[in-house]
Amino acid sequence: MTTTLKGIAASKGIAFAKAFVLEQPEMNIEKTQVSDIESETSRFYDAMERARQELQIIKNKTLKDMGEDKAEIFSAHLLVLEDPEIIDGVTSKIKEEQINAEAAMKELADMYVTMFEGMDNEYMKERASDIRDVSQRILLHLLGVENTSLAAIQEETVVIAEDLTPSDTAQLDLTYVLGFATDIGGRTSHSAIMARSMEIPAVVGTRQATSSIQTGDFLIIDGMEGEVILQPDEETIVSYKEKQQEYLRKKEEWAKLVNEPSITKDGTRVELAANIGTPDDLSGVLDNGAEGIGLYRTEFLYMGRNELPDEEEQFEAYKNVLEKMNGGAVVIRTLDIGGDKELPYLDLPSELNPFLGYRAIRLCLEEKEMFRTQLRALLRAGAYGNLKIMFPMVATIEEFREAKSILEDVKNDLKQEGLQPAEDVETGIMVEIPSTAAAADIFAKEVDFFSIGTNDLIQYTMAADRMSEKVSHLYQPYHPAVLRLVKQVIEAAHNEGKWAGMCGEMAGEETAVPLLLGLGLDEFSMSATSVLPARSQLLTLTKEEAQELAAEAVNLPTAKEVEALVYEKGFIRS
Amino acid sequence: MTTTLKGIAASKGIAFAKAFVLEQPEMNIEKTQVSDIESETSRFYDAMERARQELQIIKNKTLKDMGEDKAEIFSAHLLVLEDPEIIDGVTSKIKEEQINAEAAMKELADMYVTMFEGMDNEYMKERASDIRDVSQRILLHLLGVENTSLAAIQEETVVIAEDLTPSDTAQLDLTYVLGFATDIGGRTSHSAIMARSMEIPAVVGTRQATSSIQTGDFLIIDGMEGEVILQPDEETIVSYKEKQQEYLRKKEEWAKLVNEPSITKDGTRVELAANIGTPDDLSGVLDNGAEGIGLYRTEFLYMGRNELPDEEEQFEAYKNVLEKMNGGAVVIRTLDIGGDKELPYLDLPSELNPFLGYRAIRLCLEEKEMFRTQLRALLRAGAYGNLKIMFPMVATIEEFREAKSILEDVKNDLKQEGLQPAEDVETGIMVEIPSTAAAADIFAKEVDFFSIGTNDLIQYTMAADRMSEKVSHLYQPYHPAVLRLVKQVIEAAHNEGKWAGMCGEMAGEETAVPLLLGLGLDEFSMSATSVLPARSQLLTLTKEEAQELAAEAVNLPTAKEVEALVYEKGFIRS
Repeated sequence: MTTTLKGIAASKGIAFAKAFVLEQPEMNIEKTQVSDIESETSRFYDAMERARQELQIIKNKTLKDMGEDKAEIFSAHLLVLEDPEIIDGVTSKIKEEQINAEAAMKELADMYVTMFEGMDNEYMKERASDIRDVSQRILLHLLGVENTSLAAIQEETVVIAEDLTPSDTAQLDLTYVLGFATDIGGRTSHSAIMARSMEIPAVVGTRQATSSIQTGDFLIIDGMEGEVILQPDEETIVSYKEKQQEYLRKKEEWAKLVNEPSITKDGTRVELAANIGTPDDLSGVLDNGAEGIGLYRTEFLYMGRNELPDEEEQFEAYKNVLEKMNGGAVVIRTLDIGGDKELPYLDLPSELNPFLGYRAIRLCLEEKEMFRTQLRALLRAGAYGNLKIMFPMVATIEEFREAKSILEDVKNDLKQEGLQPAEDVETGIMVEIPSTAAAADIFAKEVDFFSIGTNDLIQYTMAADRMSEKVSHLYQPYHPAVLRLVKQVIEAAHNEGKWAGMCGEMAGEETAVPLLLGLGLDEFSMSATSVLPARSQLLTLTKEEAQELAAEAVNLPTAKEVEALVYEKGFIRS
Repeated sequence: MTTTLKGIAASKGIAFAKAFVLEQPEMNIEKTQVSDIESETSRFYDAMERARQELQIIKNKTLKDMGEDKAEIFSAHLLVLEDPEIIDGVTSKIKEEQINAEAAMKELADMYVTMFEGMDNEYMKERASDIRDVSQRILLHLLGVENTSLAAIQEETVVIAEDLTPSDTAQLDLTYVLGFATDIGGRTSHSAIMARSMEIPAVVGTRQATSSIQTGDFLIIDGMEGEVILQPDEETIVSYKEKQQEYLRKKEEWAKLVNEPSITKDGTRVELAANIGTPDDLSGVLDNGAEGIGLYRTEFLYMGRNELPDEEEQFEAYKNVLEKMNGGAVVIRTLDIGGDKELPYLDLPSELNPFLGYRAIRLCLEEKEMFRTQLRALLRAGAYGNLKIMFPMVATIEEFREAKSILEDVKNDLKQEGLQPAEDVETGIMVEIPSTAAAADIFAKEVDFFSIGTNDLIQYTMAADRMSEKVSHLYQPYHPAVLRLVKQVIEAAHNEGKWAGMCGEMAGEETAVPLLLGLGLDEFSMSATSVLPARSQLLTLTKEEAQELAAEAVNLPTAKEVEALVYEKGFIRS
């Protein structure tokens, strides 16, 4: 009988294949007394070395296939293998307690994992997950257990797993793996992000995929609806084949739009841009025909290292992106660190509510040298393309004024040094704090542009952390209050002859595009893979209809009714 | 030479007296080996018993002088003394490590304090502070060290301390202690709250009072400006004496207004109400002539215990307050727990950003039995006075509808059981989430009233946790965005013929009163001690001038300019 598991739609597309259920390798670790300390210690070093070689291979493969950003996690894993606290911890345990390497490794890893996980600090939690992944790898070598190898899959398969770790996803061979489904995770978990980047359908957070499915079961994975269909009957298969064809047909349609303008049926032109994290993401931007970059997050330059990046390194990174975009606008956001994103070499305070804390512009205005270095690099790189500078987390006009004045100061310094800073660089702000939206008219007089950062704006407006399972239902992009704030920001910009964009996840959603068009948004910045679907959707819309839709939506009482309205009025095609 | 230490104004008034600097008792704890385990263990039990007797006395005194709420902390201290993990921990340390009781107690306490403090969880941090206070008390007994006794002060004194613990403040004899100043703490720290409740001037957070001042130094404490004046010269003393006279004269003026209406110079009537935490706070409410209770926080009924309070206990507490208020409106807020306020007997998730998490109505709508019990008690008590029920942290109209429907359901149950629930109880919401302010017109159609909770509303609107030192400067009550949201809420209420109040700290501030009057606020709810100053201030205002002020303020670009405007226009008298 056909049954359906509901999960979270993590990556679009439909896959049909037999399941490969990833088993957790069985590891029975017994603690035994050893007398030959030296040979036990050298067993441990051997296992470490093999783990190191494996990780090096995985890292290089990931670097080649997926870019620097995605390979970074394996650099972190390699660092764990070099951590003296771990190495000395295990070897002294072996020596002092005269126990086997497996038990020593496991006890030490468990201790660190428990400690780091208890810390209520996302950076430390990631360290816990690194240590778990790496110690598992070492233990497998010590025990001589064969890891169920995803790399060994040689026929068309959908992978079913409790979760997929970075080590797992790096092993997937896309010739055979057509999609996957997991028990845990959400739209922004590692596995979901990887699926979108690999462009394979995926459903996460099904809670019960591994317990309901066995290797060899024939499945359908629907990455649009977030469903896994078990034992589909003939009729179901036929209907999903049609849905798949429809999706593939759409993808072909979209591909034709790569070099087309972003324009509505009645000729209203908007800009469709992409969000990027590193220069490696540029190929995706160009392949998908984005007209510009609406958000270049500069955090990655600062992360996964032991010291601040210097001016030259930043200059090269920014220049590289600006040149490759060939005149297209590139909005570079100054450092948005702090909160849940920590830098080990900056001594940031531990806060009860990091999202309401010391981060982004708040931090940059205190860490002035760091900020000036970034601004110098930006202004120098600005000479090589169409740069716009954006400040994140601005809550008061005083903060913008201070940031702007430091920028001017830096520009003067550069001139005096005989370097050539870009002139007339537009400077704008992310609108992601409710105060800034509510006072947008005040800001619009002084900034050159707004870019609405919906991820944070929605969190603060609804007072709901979308990462918190218990309240994520209150993270409502279509709540009328959110739409009203967006409307207010756009109108304030237009009243002063400025432009308004949006760089949150919302900008690329099919439900959002007609609403935002209707509210007058000028620039939509989204993940690169959403650009072509959005361009295609625009071709079906008229500005006037969208305006009527938006005017009605902002006066509805609930988010549900807004979504239903967009659907009922025929703005959603799928 | 006269010098001035700046701190935080914690409690109004001016005091002149010699300083008594509270020394931390010297405790040299050496770890020694003991052979007579039994006598060492009994030394420990003796010290515990003496600490217990002391705490019992302090608790009873506090209960008598300050009420149940303030005595609660000593119940928590007494519980520490009964905690088997502590008792067994120390006795087994003595036995197994053969060490002296002092060292065993200290090591165990240090371990727990470090562990609990590292937990990033306010409840656990309070446990850490309880354990620190109690273990110190036990150690003093073990070492036979005389504690510098605040209770022994027999002449007029201002106390100078690094901080004042609950044990310390409970010992202050107000016949002699005229005020205090501390090195650490903020406006909402324990010592500051106690100072306001004892109505003595206090300055906290001076950073250097104990290092700059010696016992016997003559000082002035200015609790209005947050200043400690050292070695004041004759001229300074004279000018502060005048200021003190002025303050005392004002207090006398205020006292005459206890039974007067709250009315402006041109006859506009508003309601001045008080915020309370327990029925014990009622005497302060009545003494200060508050017309009603604008916020009765029900959390204290649920805290400091091991199980939920039952319906009868709640019914008695609510009935007591309603009866004593003698027909004055009593707005009772349903349970606002979660976030930083935890209940040990509810298994709440640990969250990265508790202020954006699972709390208040979000939690009550899931813990339905608990919620129904409170609503039953409220509706039954409602028959004894002028009850209004208020739901906290409402972000969407769906939440209000669900809460209201549970209330109706509970009312029907009560009727069927032959109990008599209050009919026609007004039901309203706290407006403390930006979405609710921005969609106030939607809510105004369905609620009976709004009460603006500025503490949270400002935090979310500015995305700044006021407890976080690094960003507390962004917690700006007078930011134009905050004023605009307040304006929007009041107008939405009036458009539907409903009333709007405010129950955050802001409602009683001298700068805020004219602005809020001008924005049309109907009810101002504040700490009881602010009611008479506010009533006196209202007598100097006209509605029209206040309206002009407010209209100008909402269009200023910064909070600083708003505050300056209120001052320049002559609305601040001090």
